[in-house]
Amino acid sequence: MKIITVSREFGSGGRELGKRMADVLGWDYYDREIISAIAEKTDLTEEYVENVLNSQTWQSIPLTFGHSFAAFSNYNPQINLLAEQRKVIEEIGRSGRDCIIVGRNADKILADINPFNIFVCATMDARTERCRARAADDEKLSRKELERKIKSIDKKRAATREIISGSVWGQRDSYHLTVNTTGWNIKELAPAVAAFAEKWFDKHSGGDED
Amino acid sequence: MKIITVSREFGSGGRELGKRMADVLGWDYYDREIISAIAEKTDLTEEYVENVLNSQTWQSIPLTFGHSFAAFSNYNPQINLLAEQRKVIEEIGRSGRDCIIVGRNADKILADINPFNIFVCATMDARTERCRARAADDEKLSRKELERKIKSIDKKRAATREIISGSVWGQRDSYHLTVNTTGWNIKELAPAVAAFAEKWFDKHSGGDED
Repeated sequence: MKIITVSREFGSGGRELGKRMADVLGWDYYDREIISAIAEKTDLTEEYVENVLNSQTWQSIPLTFGHSFAAFSNYNPQINLLAEQRKVIEEIGRSGRDCIIVGRNADKILADINPFNIFVCATMDARTERCRARAADDEKLSRKELERKIKSIDKKRAATREIISGSVWGQRDSYHLTVNTTGWNIKELAPAVAAFAEKWFDKHSGGDED
Repeated sequence: MKIITVSREFGSGGRELGKRMADVLGWDYYDREIISAIAEKTDLTEEYVENVLNSQTWQSIPLTFGHSFAAFSNYNPQINLLAEQRKVIEEIGRSGRDCIIVGRNADKILADINPFNIFVCATMDARTERCRARAADDEKLSRKELERKIKSIDKKRAATREIISGSVWGQRDSYHLTVNTTGWNIKELAPAVAAFAEKWFDKHSGGDED
């Protein structure tokens, strides 16, 4: 079983890269599908699940809180939903089907089954341009506001990752490959990254650790 | 003309990766050859040139020094040799021959001719292991001492890069690809990275910027 995880800076095109790689390889693809599965399990709306998971409420947890983790998790819906998310990702990992998972710290959650982990980045210029091109809302923001938005989303991702896994988001030696999408057409980049990942699996699948 | 530059963490196997990629592609390879060229031009020994270039004397330059750059460069052999090194790398860039250049901030010096820039990293465990395997001296160092040595060499590379180019060493969005060698046999990794770089050049050579 082969899994590729895609972590990414906001606006880098990482999601599109993951989707296109799944197309190239003919593998399953998980992104919003994970939100849907959580919503179904918890009887919450997808919108609520997504909002809570993307919110940054860690800072409001009082560090001197005197109760156990289990007790205080009742007060923080994000912790409960992150636990649900972990379960869904673990189920994907047990499904035995080759797949690509975008975001959600799947690289850390599935570390035991050795996924190939990609981090996707781009220059700030390329990221603001991509945001403008894909979201009507972002067109109204000034360059400075857009940059602030991008940095704030990245900061949340970094905080969630650190809390979930204790590891630093984007740190180069915790991914197999860090791909800069700047200057690439993602459609042309996808087969190049897929070919690289396939070479990794050629060497590392089937217990042949070389 | 195609140039691949390889920047790397100490102990990551970046030099071997560059050499093997040059073999795979059948391109010229520059590494110590640059030291030899500087030594010849300056009538200094290769050993001296290398020692000075690898030394970290920036900190000793008084920031309040009251003279021009040209005047005070007489007091710092590293600055003169870095200027010579830049000239040698620019000559390589003008030669018109496809090549791979390891280290020496060639990515920044040759930025105008759009090289494909790789950064090579590995986990600290993999790096200490590689150092031990290749250098008899390093076998005598404790893990802690070896880690300190690795970090100190990286710090010098980072400082030199910042002074030469004003850009941060290892920052992901200033390279096209950041490759983690951990878990790879470099001999098998080289063709995978070479294939990726060739796809980049397919899209970006001959003025077809797509």
